[in-house]
Amino acid sequence: MAKDKKFVEEITPRSEDFAQWYTDVVKKAELMQYSSLKGFMIYKPLGYAIWENIQKNMDAMFKETGVENVYMPLLMPESLLKKEAEHVEGFAPEVAWVTQGGIQPLQERLAIRPTSETLFCDLYSTIVQSYRDLPKVYNQWCSVVRWEKTTRPFLRSSEFLWQEGHTAHATAEEAEARTIQMLNVYADFCEKYLAIPVIKGRKTDKEKFAGAEATYTIETLMHDGKALQSGTSHNFGDGFARAYGIQYTDKNNQLRYVHQTSWGVSTRLIGAIIMVHGDDSGLVLPPRIAPVQIVIVPVMQQKEGVLEKAEELRQQLQKAGFSVKLDDSEKSPGWKFAEAEMRGIPLRIEVGPKDIEKEQVVMVRRDNRKKVFVPMRELTERAEQLLEQEQEDMLARAKDFLNSHISDAHTYEEFKDAVANRPGFIRGMWCGDEACEDRIKEDTTATSRCMPFDEDTIDDKCVCCGKPAHRLVYWGKAY
Amino acid sequence: MAKDKKFVEEITPRSEDFAQWYTDVVKKAELMQYSSLKGFMIYKPLGYAIWENIQKNMDAMFKETGVENVYMPLLMPESLLKKEAEHVEGFAPEVAWVTQGGIQPLQERLAIRPTSETLFCDLYSTIVQSYRDLPKVYNQWCSVVRWEKTTRPFLRSSEFLWQEGHTAHATAEEAEARTIQMLNVYADFCEKYLAIPVIKGRKTDKEKFAGAEATYTIETLMHDGKALQSGTSHNFGDGFARAYGIQYTDKNNQLRYVHQTSWGVSTRLIGAIIMVHGDDSGLVLPPRIAPVQIVIVPVMQQKEGVLEKAEELRQQLQKAGFSVKLDDSEKSPGWKFAEAEMRGIPLRIEVGPKDIEKEQVVMVRRDNRKKVFVPMRELTERAEQLLEQEQEDMLARAKDFLNSHISDAHTYEEFKDAVANRPGFIRGMWCGDEACEDRIKEDTTATSRCMPFDEDTIDDKCVCCGKPAHRLVYWGKAY
Repeated sequence: MAKDKKFVEEITPRSEDFAQWYTDVVKKAELMQYSSLKGFMIYKPLGYAIWENIQKNMDAMFKETGVENVYMPLLMPESLLKKEAEHVEGFAPEVAWVTQGGIQPLQERLAIRPTSETLFCDLYSTIVQSYRDLPKVYNQWCSVVRWEKTTRPFLRSSEFLWQEGHTAHATAEEAEARTIQMLNVYADFCEKYLAIPVIKGRKTDKEKFAGAEATYTIETLMHDGKALQSGTSHNFGDGFARAYGIQYTDKNNQLRYVHQTSWGVSTRLIGAIIMVHGDDSGLVLPPRIAPVQIVIVPVMQQKEGVLEKAEELRQQLQKAGFSVKLDDSEKSPGWKFAEAEMRGIPLRIEVGPKDIEKEQVVMVRRDNRKKVFVPMRELTERAEQLLEQEQEDMLARAKDFLNSHISDAHTYEEFKDAVANRPGFIRGMWCGDEACEDRIKEDTTATSRCMPFDEDTIDDKCVCCGKPAHRLVYWGKAY
Repeated sequence: MAKDKKFVEEITPRSEDFAQWYTDVVKKAELMQYSSLKGFMIYKPLGYAIWENIQKNMDAMFKETGVENVYMPLLMPESLLKKEAEHVEGFAPEVAWVTQGGIQPLQERLAIRPTSETLFCDLYSTIVQSYRDLPKVYNQWCSVVRWEKTTRPFLRSSEFLWQEGHTAHATAEEAEARTIQMLNVYADFCEKYLAIPVIKGRKTDKEKFAGAEATYTIETLMHDGKALQSGTSHNFGDGFARAYGIQYTDKNNQLRYVHQTSWGVSTRLIGAIIMVHGDDSGLVLPPRIAPVQIVIVPVMQQKEGVLEKAEELRQQLQKAGFSVKLDDSEKSPGWKFAEAEMRGIPLRIEVGPKDIEKEQVVMVRRDNRKKVFVPMRELTERAEQLLEQEQEDMLARAKDFLNSHISDAHTYEEFKDAVANRPGFIRGMWCGDEACEDRIKEDTTATSRCMPFDEDTIDDKCVCCGKPAHRLVYWGKAY
């Protein structure tokens, strides 16, 4: 047991130093590691498998709404990136530039995509002619590069994996509807698969995307009380269409500009899973997204019949559709338990000689570590029940945590007190003046996270300047 | 019907100009288009969906053999790329270089990965310490950049999509076994999913991968008689391990170098599908890889009940697990037929008022265009039968084509005559001297494709120089 303890002891307790705990979990659960190039990460098998499951399930949701996947070039000429002024201004400081291809220096330098708005615009300008060609609802899964000075696994790095959807529509209404539709897909996905509740809302102009008319966001709350922007959906109006000349003839043969949207989520979602659900024993993965849902640990596996029975159970569970692993390595059971907990496997099944005699197994949920004895004949039904309940409980706990970490502030004193003493979101009215956002950020480091949908006002004065205000804002410190 | 004819007439007949036919199919079937950056392609929805299906099915085959997916950085420092001399020599002329990140020029220039051997070596040198850490069997799906002067959709471009597997093993035997295992996975995949038979064999030293001890290949034959290298698997021995310092301690506590392999296939496979199966009406997709397997075309769709019945059939087929599309657009049925053929949809179902009256539908296979009347109550069974038969027939036809396009040459005169007059592979003995390969290439443009497994010799003299020879080589013009 000494060894097992050591395994766990290598993680800093979450309450002691959240940032160090996060780094420890990423490392010990073998999710990711730094490469020899600063800011560039290596997604290891478990980290990448989580991303694959996110992709698979979200992509199915996309396709149900009519999304088609494409793949656009990695590089774009500088002149193409520069066509939309606000957009290039937003991204230029972060772009990696290619200046030589093969043995020849290039005549024009090329940007590695920091995002692909400009490439999609270029494509749409060539393939959209008539209203019959609309809408175009394309998406791609790829990596993008944005040169970052400070990096943190999954949350901020110079290269990251994401999806970026880019659409073109005949009307402003249709574009707005698609923007909201995709935000809702993100919100539903987070709740259903990741067991993470979200706050949906609109970004202030200060926080919106470079070149967008409106940016909508899902904001999630980490266990340390900091917010994580977890997905965004942008309505571009016809701004890009005008810059890139994307026009179509409508039914009356009139030439019109298209209206565009874009929307994306990234591997930040893996950061959210870690920071919402993880505990002092490591990762806790929601069953619906876990690459391995069940681990079987044989106890006294050298005894006759134990490994055979464990393998029989593994096959039975696999046949029933679970992703299951039998850990028949030479480590001690305690070590295997600790390792499986570190890697967040939702359900552990123990089986030893005594269990076999009694025709039972032990099932232990990862989230609450509750042990139950289950007759072998009920193996698959009970595994399914426990995993479903675990998924449900994880969401319920995350919802409770979120709801108990939202506080209202009516005055600036209350606001500053909340930022200092009550981790989480702070609801406060805002007059609409960017100066108040700036002041709040300077005084407290909190930023406006979003103006929520469907919420009443809680006051009629700006929480910062006291002037009349009718916009409710969720504020918070954020990653 | 005039319109429908026009739709098809835009393709050059395959027999008239194969290269132009290929380009026309790629364009008219909307598989891909050029971006505004020379050499960089846009994978459109149909082209990308075929790649997604290749990925999905091949990835499942990989995982059955124990492969784990990871994601490695897009960029690597020049010093890292340069550690293995032969390797860097092979790739340096094709590398795209990043010299600026954000607003700062970089101190060391960075290569966009042309392949990721060096990154995996760097990783393995940090995570492999003991024999217990072996084997490592990692793979990634990504894009790579190799600056090309001439480009051709799917076959050659400056950026392309692929997978690259990289493994590290304790022994030379295990590495060799993995190299051959993955080549067999590729061969099986091509036969089973793409209905494309392959020739398996080993590359000569002249044609092997930069830095490899041995390169194995699957070679396929296109309809114009040219060969396409469709997948390769390399055994690196311990060469990279020595250059990058990848060592482990064995069971006897001895420090040893690992033995490595790498293996890859790319979107070239899509080129192979087009050029093996396509015809003068466009693409012909094998049912197991087709993004849409069945298209339903309503006839006289304005008549009451036709669209409703068509939709009912669509749902029935979808429920049975087929990927099915109902084309209820306002185009004429003839136009829809031509479009569905162009896009290679394996099975077309027509249903009109008379069919509804007779409770039947018309089913038309894409490959042979045979029409059958099918009672509606047998809809799903017959669709399945027809698709299975089509998949089988496509493979059988491709096999016949391959076998009837292999000729033997015993003298150099016979060889030159075969290259000039008999499209396909030429089997000829080789003495092992690179000078003969060079001469053959210069005289005929044919190259050594591979030294096949499990084949007898057909002569005892080199087909080029006449000296003693005991190696049989498949020669051919190639893409």
